[in-house]
Amino acid sequence: MIDSARYPRLARIDSPADLRKFDEAELPAIADELRAYLIESVGKSGGHFGAGLGVIELTTALHWLYETPEDRIVWDVGHQTYPHKILTGRRDGIHTVKQKDGVAPFPKREESEYDTFGVGHSSTSISAALGMAIANARAGNERKVVAVIGDGAMTAGMAYEALNHAGGMEPEPSLLVILNDNRMSISENVGGMTKMLGRMTGSRTLNAIREGGKKLLGDKRSSGTARFVRRWEEHWKGMFVPSTLFEEMGFHYTGPIDGHDIKALVGALKTLKTLKGPQLLHVITTKGKGYELAEGDQIGYHAVGPFDPTQGVVAKSGAKKPTYTDIFGDWLCDMAAADPALLGITPAMREGSGLVRFSKEYPDRYFDVAIAEQHAVTLAAGMACEGAKPVVAIYSTFLQRGYDQLVHDVAIQNLDVLFAIDRGGVVGPDGATHAGNLDLSYLRCVPNMVVMAPGDENECRQMLSTGFAYAGPAAVRYPRGTGPGVAVQPNLDTLPIGKADLRRRGTRLAVLAFGAVLPAALQVGEELDLTVVNMRFVKPLDRALVLELAKSHDGFVTVEDNVVMGGAGSAVAELLNAEGIALPILHLGLPDLFQHHASREDLLAEAGLDVAGIRAGIANRWPQVAGSRTRLSAASA
Amino acid sequence: MIDSARYPRLARIDSPADLRKFDEAELPAIADELRAYLIESVGKSGGHFGAGLGVIELTTALHWLYETPEDRIVWDVGHQTYPHKILTGRRDGIHTVKQKDGVAPFPKREESEYDTFGVGHSSTSISAALGMAIANARAGNERKVVAVIGDGAMTAGMAYEALNHAGGMEPEPSLLVILNDNRMSISENVGGMTKMLGRMTGSRTLNAIREGGKKLLGDKRSSGTARFVRRWEEHWKGMFVPSTLFEEMGFHYTGPIDGHDIKALVGALKTLKTLKGPQLLHVITTKGKGYELAEGDQIGYHAVGPFDPTQGVVAKSGAKKPTYTDIFGDWLCDMAAADPALLGITPAMREGSGLVRFSKEYPDRYFDVAIAEQHAVTLAAGMACEGAKPVVAIYSTFLQRGYDQLVHDVAIQNLDVLFAIDRGGVVGPDGATHAGNLDLSYLRCVPNMVVMAPGDENECRQMLSTGFAYAGPAAVRYPRGTGPGVAVQPNLDTLPIGKADLRRRGTRLAVLAFGAVLPAALQVGEELDLTVVNMRFVKPLDRALVLELAKSHDGFVTVEDNVVMGGAGSAVAELLNAEGIALPILHLGLPDLFQHHASREDLLAEAGLDVAGIRAGIANRWPQVAGSRTRLSAASA
Repeated sequence: MIDSARYPRLARIDSPADLRKFDEAELPAIADELRAYLIESVGKSGGHFGAGLGVIELTTALHWLYETPEDRIVWDVGHQTYPHKILTGRRDGIHTVKQKDGVAPFPKREESEYDTFGVGHSSTSISAALGMAIANARAGNERKVVAVIGDGAMTAGMAYEALNHAGGMEPEPSLLVILNDNRMSISENVGGMTKMLGRMTGSRTLNAIREGGKKLLGDKRSSGTARFVRRWEEHWKGMFVPSTLFEEMGFHYTGPIDGHDIKALVGALKTLKTLKGPQLLHVITTKGKGYELAEGDQIGYHAVGPFDPTQGVVAKSGAKKPTYTDIFGDWLCDMAAADPALLGITPAMREGSGLVRFSKEYPDRYFDVAIAEQHAVTLAAGMACEGAKPVVAIYSTFLQRGYDQLVHDVAIQNLDVLFAIDRGGVVGPDGATHAGNLDLSYLRCVPNMVVMAPGDENECRQMLSTGFAYAGPAAVRYPRGTGPGVAVQPNLDTLPIGKADLRRRGTRLAVLAFGAVLPAALQVGEELDLTVVNMRFVKPLDRALVLELAKSHDGFVTVEDNVVMGGAGSAVAELLNAEGIALPILHLGLPDLFQHHASREDLLAEAGLDVAGIRAGIANRWPQVAGSRTRLSAASA
Repeated sequence: MIDSARYPRLARIDSPADLRKFDEAELPAIADELRAYLIESVGKSGGHFGAGLGVIELTTALHWLYETPEDRIVWDVGHQTYPHKILTGRRDGIHTVKQKDGVAPFPKREESEYDTFGVGHSSTSISAALGMAIANARAGNERKVVAVIGDGAMTAGMAYEALNHAGGMEPEPSLLVILNDNRMSISENVGGMTKMLGRMTGSRTLNAIREGGKKLLGDKRSSGTARFVRRWEEHWKGMFVPSTLFEEMGFHYTGPIDGHDIKALVGALKTLKTLKGPQLLHVITTKGKGYELAEGDQIGYHAVGPFDPTQGVVAKSGAKKPTYTDIFGDWLCDMAAADPALLGITPAMREGSGLVRFSKEYPDRYFDVAIAEQHAVTLAAGMACEGAKPVVAIYSTFLQRGYDQLVHDVAIQNLDVLFAIDRGGVVGPDGATHAGNLDLSYLRCVPNMVVMAPGDENECRQMLSTGFAYAGPAAVRYPRGTGPGVAVQPNLDTLPIGKADLRRRGTRLAVLAFGAVLPAALQVGEELDLTVVNMRFVKPLDRALVLELAKSHDGFVTVEDNVVMGGAGSAVAELLNAEGIALPILHLGLPDLFQHHASREDLLAEAGLDVAGIRAGIANRWPQVAGSRTRLSAASA
């Protein structure tokens, strides 16, 4: 429960209706409490931090002024919504964020009526808000729709597509887009748009002229002469002020204003709330605002583990087990040293994808293309046409954004692009929007692709070398976090394409394991004396080995951390069916549902992909096989 | 062979090197010959027409001025490249375009070294060209890179992502983007960008000032003081002229110029060829230029069948069999009449997707969002949040561009969106870039989706009604062209979700047919006295029926016009495996390769999915079953 002595106002706010009982004059004090409470809560729970601190005032102003949930606020990339969650009934639960059965880390429609749209990937908010505005207008509903989008998210193509549609529509749709301009994605923003915003906010003259314009116009905007005034204003601005991209796209631009000045925010929003047509409010904020350490290290404090707010985040001492991300990052630097043709591409995920070292050591071979997965993939295709060897480092869930480009620009042309796919399979605390549960299915159906999934850290490195050496499109898909702890060899050796690794020969059943589930599969194989294969390649399969094992076993167990539907196990079934072999197969993999947020371990266990689950799955199908466990255990005891 | 009397110059141009032997003064005459030859050729072969006519002068100027193939020209949406193909060694074969073993309808790297990048989907050219420019710069190669992109293609997010990246890069990449501004995609362009271009080209003052600026600057641009002059010019323009979106993104803008004035084109390009950094040349052209009927009906002449150029395209007389596209278009209007919540969305494919009638009858419920598949899907999700019932009409191959949005914005939130997926499965003459061979695989792995494939026209309508009535994400995936000719009932009846249709009970084998292959499967079933099921639902499968049939048959034959990898047949195998049933299954479907262009019938036959192929597939696996054919034929004779 919230400490009402420390948070006298916030303690009384169980919903935005409570917030709206306060006078405008009290809003700064409420914002201060909200900020302090957020710092305290995230200190306990860990989670996304800097983005929330940056929108404390904006969140407060919006919920105070708009009739939420009747009015719709669509938050882009939901990691900025902890303050929103605190003000909308989830104050006392916010410390459970990201935990199993706890508050979701992103807006989630089934969690709250205030969460109008589920957002985990960036740049969706304008499209969703426009859809809402259109549907409401058609239904004769007067509710307001507001999208809050960061300047980072504005670098993505789909945000532009939505601006283009909204700005060109007739009749004009009524929606407000708030551009939360903090110069950051997770790392610094890049690209022409970012430079443009810098020029806009940096020009004193421009701002002075704009402010002058506003004073001149006063409240006439909402009057009957609004259209005339607006035209006149646009003409006037066109004469003296370079128009902004937003105005060129058909939006009416207001700003820039200080997003931490709650009075200014409320003032601007009050006016905008009365206006029709597509409106854009440009707000300047500071990521991490109000927590000095976070302001000073915006990347480090984007998301944090639990920490003591009086101390800040303290780096853990002692040698850490390297994550798959680390292994990729090191491999990239080593391979770059060995082959000058290597170029590294990231769609705005330098830190998450392990490219920090590469970006420093090879700045001229490092390409952060902004949040632009479509472009990232086709850029790589273009590079490959000219003999460069591009590596696209991308999360599994975000590769979905570049799927057409992977098919159309890379695979059809059989171009030499390596996809280093992080966060494949079960991801965990970030929930369904960040899951990598589908990638083996949507990748293996694409002709020309080589698809690999490592069973341990060293193999991950070998596979990266293999995919890089292979003269065509290849993907290495590895999981979030750490592996079993296998030592990583420093060489750049490759694996033979399409060759699996027979790990143990047992009897009766062969367990064919794909990727991260290998250690659990091996343990069960040991227990039950089963054959275990580290399949390594989802595509092409090791046809010879699979057919040989089919002859010598009573059945197959395929194990993968991908949905069973169309996954690696299905590839095995297709091969047997193509050969006319009717062998019993048990497919163990992820279920046909979107998993909720929880720890990766919990989700794997729920899906029956830990040791106990694999054992139980086999026992359920072949009780006589699993029965041998007791005998084996007894024999080995 | 080309008639050298009628085309005295063109007959001597076997490659751009031959073109470059001509004086600049002869270029207009060459362009005239090229235009006449294109009209004659497309009259014979059919194919894309209007876009090619619009870039006759531009193509001539580019190949005359640039050292192709050493310099790289990347054509966006390759349907504008017939003139390019004529000038680059494919003059005498251009009349075979789209035919099996004929010239490909889009640039194809394996066809010609002049085809630098395969383009069938729009808006990829800037990304690819930037990738080439970066790779060349790194390799110390001085070759020039030019992307030619239409204003329609510029509405897509990925073009913006590429502009943003290129415009913000340091050091500046050297590439030229030519904006071929003809106001058209396949139909008229929409959106804020289009309006902006209209304002730019419409303002005489603006153009006068720009021209003045150019004269003032003269040739100084390429001199050592270029950077100073450019800054000065930008400052000067900023004082008087609203900057363009392109300049704001970091490109240096030149234009607009008349794209049919070859002298002006060559002049501008000569200057631009010497400049460093990201350059944008804005060229105004007319789609269909030089063929009056095509200029007058730009949509109708976008792509044509064979026609007599002296007559123009003549509508075929007599009642035509309705295509699946027609059936969708009629259904959409009928359902819109029945349910006012229906809203129709197309990403710039009004004609191709059969939305012409709907757009006229329900203009306020029709949303052409421009070439913006990502936005189209999330817009629908937003609409569905507010109780509207959106229908996204989209080609299978283009849905790949909205895949993340389908997963992340629609399916995870289980929103009520219907995807009407045209051109599913084998498409044919447009080649691999337009194939819909993967959709069942990439759709069925997505939780919450209902996926249907109709076996005939009437069922297509029923499925559309079914998906529309179903309160969640659903997809109906139907093929290009006409079906078996089943009469379409005017009602809006629905089918039970997940129920297959047992079409005939036979012996020994059960043929499980998905979608368009049903008629062929039925015929083989008749011949061989096999059980045949019209499966209807790829997801959810008719579990009860499949399990019942598994008990009473010796084997299954699954048939689908999707790749076998992860396709509908695999879903059947997964179900049997989940139930512990080891039944022989033969999967008939598309192979794991990108099919070349040919007629749909040829490609289906090649894949063994016509009657003969299905029969042969079964005979190969079960000779004793196919042997009965002779007996059956004898018995029925």
